[in-house]
Amino acid sequence: MTAAEQTAVRRRGAAVEATVLDTTIALLVERGSAIAVDEVAEASGVHKTTIYRRYPTRELLIAAAIRRLGETAVPAVVDADPRAAVLQLARSVAGALRSPQGGNILRAVMAASAASPELVAFADDFFRDRYALATEHLARLAAAGGLRADVDPVVVWEQIVNPMHVRALCGRATSDAEAEQLVELALRGAAV
Amino acid sequence: MTAAEQTAVRRRGAAVEATVLDTTIALLVERGSAIAVDEVAEASGVHKTTIYRRYPTRELLIAAAIRRLGETAVPAVVDADPRAAVLQLARSVAGALRSPQGGNILRAVMAASAASPELVAFADDFFRDRYALATEHLARLAAAGGLRADVDPVVVWEQIVNPMHVRALCGRATSDAEAEQLVELALRGAAV
Repeated sequence: MTAAEQTAVRRRGAAVEATVLDTTIALLVERGSAIAVDEVAEASGVHKTTIYRRYPTRELLIAAAIRRLGETAVPAVVDADPRAAVLQLARSVAGALRSPQGGNILRAVMAASAASPELVAFADDFFRDRYALATEHLARLAAAGGLRADVDPVVVWEQIVNPMHVRALCGRATSDAEAEQLVELALRGAAV
Repeated sequence: MTAAEQTAVRRRGAAVEATVLDTTIALLVERGSAIAVDEVAEASGVHKTTIYRRYPTRELLIAAAIRRLGETAVPAVVDADPRAAVLQLARSVAGALRSPQGGNILRAVMAASAASPELVAFADDFFRDRYALATEHLARLAAAGGLRADVDPVVVWEQIVNPMHVRALCGRATSDAEAEQLVELALRGAAV
């Protein structure tokens, strides 16, 4: 294959992946976790052997779809001011959870993981990965003397986003102003 | 019926209720949310018409079982010192979520509610009710000048317990020391 052909194959691969994962999300939102790979194949128009080649189990397919959704809904933030970056991320999480997909998807993951230890471990990995977007900025704030050194930035971020997660699971939204208050309280709690 | 007979009937009713709800919890822990009233009837030895008379839907049965578990696992706390009461409740929640049942039950509720708007509303009611155990003490602390008046005690308690909930959903425990740190940070964040 020429370099141009290889690029074309990669692009096609990425497009197929996007189609499969977006279809998986749509089905999760619509019907909760009780989805089968066959249904994703039918709804996406991608052959199921192609799907199985990439995602050998239903759990891996759901995990990949959630990961993609998370990365799209809450992108990384670049800001010289760590406090501003944390605020922006908190608002972004609140917004993502307010979307019609938000609570449904979160419940679907929890539902899927109720029946699968593999997905419980995935949920843990997923949250840790996503938290890193924020804890990086919180660590900068700590290094600048803005947070106590004996408090794990992960705990500070959990106090900001986990209330939003549980509210979304219970069908309740967090406004931007409420997200900002969660940030203010958590940063004040862990301030030097 | 004599008063003694009425008391006996009430006791029998309470015993049947306890049996049915404990069996429901055991099945939820064992198999997640995919349980049927018939299975609860078979496993508990209580006739299904008796169960349906008390709990007209599977969702109401699950809701009642979770409520009973919550009340047993995290009882109300009486303490003249509101801060001590909040600490004790936080340790109690951490302990309940560390039990083998903890995460499984939480995931089972979320799984059940993924497929049922009725259970989403129940989860919301349940959390609000349970939060009241703590917010009562936090309101006392606020009245004594220990917390800012412009911060809702519910938000303070969410910052304490929701990290424990999300960790449990992800299969991770919160130690008593970690629960105490969550309290310390949240109270400091909302301090006057």
